[in-house]
Amino acid sequence: MSSLTFTPMNDDAFALFWPTFQAIVAEQQTYAIDPDISYQAAYTLWCEAPKATFAVKDASGELVGSYYLKANAAGPGDHVCNCGYMVTAAARGKGVARAMCEHSQQVAQTLGFKAMQFNAVVSTNEVAVALWQRLGFNIVGTVPHAYRHATLGPVDTHVMHKLL
Amino acid sequence: MSSLTFTPMNDDAFALFWPTFQAIVAEQQTYAIDPDISYQAAYTLWCEAPKATFAVKDASGELVGSYYLKANAAGPGDHVCNCGYMVTAAARGKGVARAMCEHSQQVAQTLGFKAMQFNAVVSTNEVAVALWQRLGFNIVGTVPHAYRHATLGPVDTHVMHKLL
Repeated sequence: MSSLTFTPMNDDAFALFWPTFQAIVAEQQTYAIDPDISYQAAYTLWCEAPKATFAVKDASGELVGSYYLKANAAGPGDHVCNCGYMVTAAARGKGVARAMCEHSQQVAQTLGFKAMQFNAVVSTNEVAVALWQRLGFNIVGTVPHAYRHATLGPVDTHVMHKLL
Repeated sequence: MSSLTFTPMNDDAFALFWPTFQAIVAEQQTYAIDPDISYQAAYTLWCEAPKATFAVKDASGELVGSYYLKANAAGPGDHVCNCGYMVTAAARGKGVARAMCEHSQQVAQTLGFKAMQFNAVVSTNEVAVALWQRLGFNIVGTVPHAYRHATLGPVDTHVMHKLL
Protein backbone atom coordinates (compact mmCIF):
# COMPACT_ATOMS: atom_id res chain seq x y z
CA MET A 1 0.00 0.00 0.00
CA SER A 2 1.51 3.30 -1.04
CA SER A 3 1.11 6.69 0.57
CA LEU A 4 0.87 5.50 4.16
CA THR A 5 1.52 8.08 6.84
CA PHE A 6 3.01 7.16 10.20
CA THR A 7 2.31 9.50 13.10
CA PRO A 8 2.94 9.04 16.83
CA MET A 9 -0.16 7.56 18.44
CA ASN A 10 -2.37 9.98 20.37
CA ASP A 11 -5.64 9.68 22.29
CA ASP A 12 -7.85 10.38 19.27
CA ALA A 13 -6.08 7.86 17.06
CA PHE A 14 -6.20 5.22 19.79
CA ALA A 15 -9.97 5.67 20.07
CA LEU A 16 -10.18 4.93 16.33
CA PHE A 17 -7.82 1.96 16.73
CA TRP A 18 -9.57 0.44 19.77
CA PRO A 19 -12.22 -1.57 17.85
CA THR A 20 -9.45 -3.22 15.83
CA PHE A 21 -7.39 -3.93 18.95
CA GLN A 22 -10.42 -5.29 20.77
CA ALA A 23 -11.48 -7.53 17.86
CA ILE A 24 -8.00 -8.98 17.41
CA VAL A 25 -7.49 -9.86 21.08
CA ALA A 26 -11.08 -11.18 21.39
CA GLU A 27 -10.40 -13.50 18.46
CA GLN A 28 -7.60 -15.22 20.43
CA GLN A 29 -5.76 -16.43 17.38
CA THR A 30 -2.66 -14.22 17.25
CA TYR A 31 -1.97 -12.20 20.41
CA ALA A 32 -1.29 -13.32 24.00
CA ILE A 33 -3.32 -10.46 25.45
CA ASP A 34 -6.27 -10.77 27.83
CA PRO A 35 -9.32 -10.89 25.51
CA ASP A 36 -11.27 -8.86 28.08
CA ILE A 37 -8.62 -6.17 28.50
CA SER A 38 -10.00 -2.73 29.35
CA TYR A 39 -9.57 0.32 27.16
CA GLN A 40 -7.25 1.90 29.71
CA ALA A 41 -5.11 -1.23 30.15
CA ALA A 42 -4.87 -1.58 26.37
CA TYR A 43 -3.80 2.05 26.08
CA THR A 44 -1.11 1.50 28.72
CA LEU A 45 0.10 -1.71 27.06
CA TRP A 46 0.12 -0.40 23.48
CA CYS A 47 0.89 3.30 23.91
CA GLU A 48 2.49 4.03 27.28
CA ALA A 49 4.74 1.08 28.10
CA PRO A 50 6.50 1.04 24.68
CA LYS A 51 9.19 3.44 23.57
CA ALA A 52 7.17 4.47 20.49
CA THR A 53 3.73 3.77 19.04
CA PHE A 54 2.54 4.78 15.59
CA ALA A 55 -0.88 5.21 14.03
CA VAL A 56 -0.84 4.42 10.32
CA LYS A 57 -3.26 6.04 7.89
CA ASP A 58 -3.79 5.62 4.15
CA ALA A 59 -3.91 8.36 1.55
CA SER A 60 -7.55 9.11 2.34
CA GLY A 61 -6.76 9.55 6.04
CA GLU A 62 -8.32 6.25 7.08
CA LEU A 63 -6.65 4.44 10.00
CA VAL A 64 -5.26 1.15 8.64
CA GLY A 65 -3.09 -0.05 11.50
CA SER A 66 -0.81 0.61 14.41
CA TYR A 67 2.40 -0.73 15.86
CA TYR A 68 4.48 -0.30 18.99
CA LEU A 69 8.22 -0.58 19.49
CA LYS A 70 9.95 -1.21 22.80
CA ALA A 71 13.09 -2.76 24.24
CA ASN A 72 12.61 -6.51 24.55
CA ALA A 73 14.67 -6.67 27.74
CA ALA A 74 16.51 -4.33 30.10
CA GLY A 75 20.16 -3.74 30.98
CA PRO A 76 22.47 -6.06 29.01
CA GLY A 77 19.53 -7.09 26.81
CA ASP A 78 18.29 -3.65 25.86
CA HIS A 79 19.91 -3.63 22.41
CA VAL A 80 17.15 -5.96 21.18
CA CYS A 81 13.75 -4.45 20.46
CA ASN A 82 10.29 -5.92 20.16
CA CYS A 83 7.30 -4.79 18.11
CA GLY A 84 3.64 -5.61 17.80
CA TYR A 85 1.59 -4.82 14.70
CA MET A 86 -2.17 -4.73 14.11
CA VAL A 87 -4.01 -4.04 10.85
CA THR A 88 -7.65 -3.03 10.61
CA ALA A 89 -9.96 -5.66 9.08
CA ALA A 90 -10.70 -3.43 6.08
CA ALA A 91 -7.02 -2.94 5.26
CA ARG A 92 -5.82 -6.55 5.38
CA GLY A 93 -3.95 -8.05 2.45
CA LYS A 94 -2.77 -4.67 1.20
CA GLY A 95 0.79 -4.63 2.47
CA VAL A 96 0.16 -2.62 5.63
CA ALA A 97 1.89 -5.13 7.93
CA ARG A 98 4.91 -5.22 5.64
CA ALA A 99 5.06 -1.43 5.54
CA MET A 100 4.77 -1.21 9.32
CA CYS A 101 7.50 -3.79 9.87
CA GLU A 102 9.83 -2.02 7.47
CA HIS A 103 9.08 1.33 9.14
CA SER A 104 9.67 -0.16 12.58
CA GLN A 105 13.07 -1.48 11.55
CA GLN A 106 14.08 1.99 10.44
CA VAL A 107 12.86 3.52 13.70
CA ALA A 108 14.60 0.80 15.69
CA GLN A 109 17.90 1.50 14.00
CA THR A 110 17.48 5.23 14.59
CA LEU A 111 16.93 4.46 18.28
CA GLY A 112 20.11 2.37 18.35
CA PHE A 113 18.65 -1.12 18.53
CA LYS A 114 20.81 -3.86 17.02
CA ALA A 115 18.16 -6.55 16.56
CA MET A 116 14.41 -7.13 16.57
CA GLN A 117 12.76 -10.08 18.28
CA PHE A 118 9.18 -11.36 18.27
CA ASN A 119 8.69 -13.54 21.33
CA ALA A 120 5.54 -15.45 20.49
CA VAL A 121 4.45 -15.58 16.86
CA VAL A 122 1.57 -18.05 16.84
CA SER A 123 2.71 -20.86 14.53
CA THR A 124 -0.70 -21.21 12.89
CA ASN A 125 -0.61 -17.53 11.88
CA GLU A 126 1.06 -18.63 8.66
CA VAL A 127 0.58 -15.33 6.86
CA ALA A 128 2.53 -13.52 9.56
CA VAL A 129 5.24 -16.17 9.87
CA ALA A 130 5.80 -16.13 6.10
CA LEU A 131 5.82 -12.34 5.95
CA TRP A 132 8.37 -11.99 8.74
CA GLN A 133 10.53 -14.60 7.03
CA ARG A 134 10.35 -12.71 3.73
CA LEU A 135 11.43 -9.60 5.64
CA GLY A 136 14.54 -11.38 6.94
CA PHE A 137 13.42 -12.76 10.30
CA ASN A 138 14.50 -16.24 11.32
CA ILE A 139 12.64 -18.69 13.53
CA VAL A 140 15.19 -19.13 16.33
CA GLY A 141 12.97 -21.13 18.65
CA THR A 142 9.61 -22.84 18.95
CA VAL A 143 7.76 -23.20 22.24
CA PRO A 144 5.42 -26.20 22.31
CA HIS A 145 1.76 -25.48 22.96
CA ALA A 146 2.41 -22.02 24.38
CA TYR A 147 -0.78 -20.53 22.90
CA ARG A 148 -4.38 -21.62 23.40
CA HIS A 149 -5.84 -20.86 19.97
CA ALA A 150 -9.59 -20.17 20.11
CA THR A 151 -10.46 -22.70 17.44
CA LEU A 152 -7.37 -24.92 17.06
CA GLY A 153 -6.58 -25.48 20.74
CA PRO A 154 -2.99 -25.51 22.02
CA VAL A 155 -0.55 -24.49 19.30
CA ASP A 156 3.16 -23.69 19.22
CA THR A 157 4.67 -20.21 19.19
CA HIS A 158 7.81 -19.15 17.40
CA VAL A 159 10.56 -16.84 18.59
CA MET A 160 11.56 -14.85 15.51
CA HIS A 161 14.64 -12.66 15.24
CA LYS A 162 16.46 -10.36 12.85
CA LEU A 163 19.75 -8.52 13.19
CA LEU A 164 19.28 -4.89 12.15
CA MET B 1 20.73 -28.17 50.96
CA SER B 2 18.25 -29.63 53.42
CA SER B 3 15.93 -27.80 55.79
CA LEU B 4 15.25 -24.82 53.59
CA THR B 5 12.19 -22.75 54.43
CA PHE B 6 10.21 -20.88 51.80
CA THR B 7 8.16 -17.92 52.96
CA PRO B 8 6.39 -15.23 50.94
CA MET B 9 8.73 -12.28 50.44
CA ASN B 10 8.12 -9.25 52.66
CA ASP B 11 9.78 -5.87 53.10
CA ASP B 12 12.24 -7.06 55.74
CA ALA B 13 13.33 -10.07 53.72
CA PHE B 14 13.74 -7.97 50.59
CA ALA B 15 16.02 -5.59 52.48
CA LEU B 16 18.18 -8.62 53.34
CA PHE B 17 18.01 -9.84 49.73
CA TRP B 18 18.78 -6.49 48.09
CA PRO B 19 22.62 -6.73 48.30
CA THR B 20 22.43 -10.09 46.49
CA PHE B 21 20.05 -8.73 43.86
CA GLN B 22 22.19 -5.65 43.36
CA ALA B 23 25.44 -7.63 43.07
CA ILE B 24 23.97 -10.06 40.54
CA VAL B 25 22.55 -7.39 38.24
CA ALA B 26 25.69 -5.23 38.58
CA GLU B 27 27.77 -8.22 37.45
CA GLN B 28 25.89 -8.29 34.09
CA GLN B 29 26.57 -11.93 33.44
CA THR B 30 23.19 -13.60 33.98
CA TYR B 31 20.21 -11.22 34.19
CA ALA B 32 18.83 -8.74 31.65
CA ILE B 33 18.06 -6.17 34.33
CA ASP B 34 19.31 -2.57 34.45
CA PRO B 35 22.53 -2.78 36.52
CA ASP B 36 21.70 0.58 38.08
CA ILE B 37 18.12 -0.34 39.00
CA SER B 38 16.80 1.41 42.12
CA TYR B 39 15.71 -0.40 45.27
CA GLN B 40 12.08 0.54 44.63
CA ALA B 41 12.14 -0.54 40.98
CA ALA B 42 13.78 -3.82 41.97
CA TYR B 43 11.10 -4.37 44.62
CA THR B 44 8.38 -3.75 42.04
CA LEU B 45 10.04 -6.05 39.49
CA TRP B 46 10.82 -8.90 41.88
CA CYS B 47 8.01 -8.70 44.44
CA GLU B 48 5.03 -6.74 43.12
CA ALA B 49 4.72 -7.58 39.41
CA PRO B 50 4.98 -11.38 39.90
CA LYS B 51 2.19 -13.62 41.14
CA ALA B 52 4.37 -14.94 43.99
CA THR B 53 7.82 -14.26 45.42
CA PHE B 54 9.57 -16.36 48.05
CA ALA B 55 12.42 -15.71 50.45
CA VAL B 56 14.43 -18.85 51.15
CA LYS B 57 16.28 -19.39 54.41
CA ASP B 58 18.49 -22.17 55.68
CA ALA B 59 18.16 -24.05 58.96
CA SER B 60 19.99 -21.30 60.83
CA GLY B 61 17.60 -18.66 59.50
CA GLU B 62 20.10 -17.19 57.06
CA LEU B 63 18.68 -15.87 53.77
CA VAL B 64 20.12 -18.02 50.97
CA GLY B 65 18.02 -16.97 47.99
CA SER B 66 14.79 -15.80 46.48
CA TYR B 67 12.65 -16.50 43.47
CA TYR B 68 9.59 -15.05 41.77
CA LEU B 69 6.87 -16.76 39.75
CA LYS B 70 4.57 -15.05 37.25
CA ALA B 71 2.59 -15.74 34.11
CA ASN B 72 4.91 -15.50 31.10
CA ALA B 73 2.15 -14.05 28.92
CA ALA B 74 -1.48 -12.95 29.20
CA GLY B 75 -4.76 -14.24 27.78
CA PRO B 76 -4.25 -17.33 25.61
CA GLY B 77 -0.65 -17.57 26.82
CA ASP B 78 -1.30 -17.38 30.55
CA HIS B 79 -0.96 -21.13 31.15
CA VAL B 80 2.82 -20.80 30.87
CA CYS B 81 4.71 -19.37 33.84
CA ASN B 82 8.10 -17.79 34.21
CA CYS B 83 10.46 -17.72 37.20
CA GLY B 84 13.67 -15.99 38.19
CA TYR B 85 16.01 -17.33 40.87
CA MET B 86 18.86 -15.71 42.76
CA VAL B 87 21.18 -17.30 45.32
CA THR B 88 23.32 -15.38 47.81
CA ALA B 89 27.07 -15.57 47.19
CA ALA B 90 27.62 -17.45 50.44
CA ALA B 91 25.09 -20.15 49.58
CA ARG B 92 26.21 -21.01 46.05
CA GLY B 93 26.98 -24.59 45.10
CA LYS B 94 24.79 -26.02 47.84
CA GLY B 95 21.69 -26.95 45.88
CA VAL B 96 19.67 -23.83 46.64
CA ALA B 97 18.85 -23.10 42.99
CA ARG B 98 17.75 -26.70 42.45
CA ALA B 99 15.56 -26.57 45.57
CA MET B 100 14.02 -23.25 44.47
CA CYS B 101 13.30 -24.53 40.97
CA GLU B 102 11.68 -27.68 42.31
CA HIS B 103 9.63 -25.62 44.79
CA SER B 104 8.56 -23.24 42.04
CA GLN B 105 7.34 -26.09 39.86
CA GLN B 106 5.15 -27.30 42.72
CA VAL B 107 3.77 -23.80 43.30
CA ALA B 108 3.19 -23.35 39.57
CA GLN B 109 1.18 -26.55 39.36
CA THR B 110 -0.86 -25.51 42.39
CA LEU B 111 -1.62 -22.23 40.63
CA GLY B 112 -2.74 -24.13 37.52
CA PHE B 113 0.18 -23.44 35.19
CA LYS B 114 0.83 -26.11 32.56
CA ALA B 115 4.41 -25.23 31.64
CA MET B 116 7.39 -23.16 32.77
CA GLN B 117 9.49 -21.05 30.43
CA PHE B 118 12.74 -19.16 30.89
CA ASN B 119 13.01 -16.52 28.18
CA ALA B 120 16.68 -15.61 28.26
CA VAL B 121 19.06 -18.01 29.96
CA VAL B 122 22.49 -16.62 29.16
CA SER B 123 24.24 -19.38 27.21
CA THR B 124 27.55 -18.85 28.98
CA ASN B 125 25.88 -19.44 32.36
CA GLU B 126 26.69 -23.12 31.92
CA VAL B 127 25.96 -24.07 35.51
CA ALA B 128 22.40 -22.79 35.18
CA VAL B 129 21.82 -24.27 31.72
CA ALA B 130 23.01 -27.69 32.90
CA LEU B 131 20.94 -27.52 36.08
CA TRP B 132 17.74 -26.62 34.24
CA GLN B 133 18.40 -29.44 31.79
CA ARG B 134 18.89 -31.92 34.65
CA LEU B 135 15.56 -30.71 36.05
CA GLY B 136 13.79 -31.52 32.79
CA PHE B 137 13.94 -28.24 30.89
CA ASN B 138 14.69 -28.26 27.16
CA ILE B 139 16.42 -25.60 25.12
CA VAL B 140 13.66 -24.74 22.62
CA GLY B 141 15.36 -21.74 21.08
CA THR B 142 18.58 -19.76 20.99
CA VAL B 143 18.68 -16.03 20.28
CA PRO B 144 21.98 -14.91 18.76
CA HIS B 145 23.92 -12.26 20.68
CA ALA B 146 20.90 -11.19 22.74
CA TYR B 147 22.97 -10.50 25.88
CA ARG B 148 25.92 -8.14 26.35
CA HIS B 149 27.99 -10.10 28.86
CA ALA B 150 30.20 -7.84 30.98
CA THR B 151 33.39 -9.77 30.27
CA LEU B 152 32.59 -11.98 27.25
CA GLY B 153 30.78 -9.43 25.09
CA PRO B 154 27.70 -10.39 23.03
CA VAL B 155 26.55 -13.92 23.84
CA ASP B 156 23.50 -15.98 22.95
CA THR B 157 20.51 -16.58 25.19
CA HIS B 158 18.45 -19.74 25.38
CA VAL B 159 14.70 -20.11 25.66
CA MET B 160 14.18 -23.04 28.03
CA HIS B 161 10.89 -24.83 28.60
CA LYS B 162 9.35 -27.63 30.62
CA LEU B 163 5.83 -29.03 30.58
CA LEU B 164 4.60 -29.35 34.17
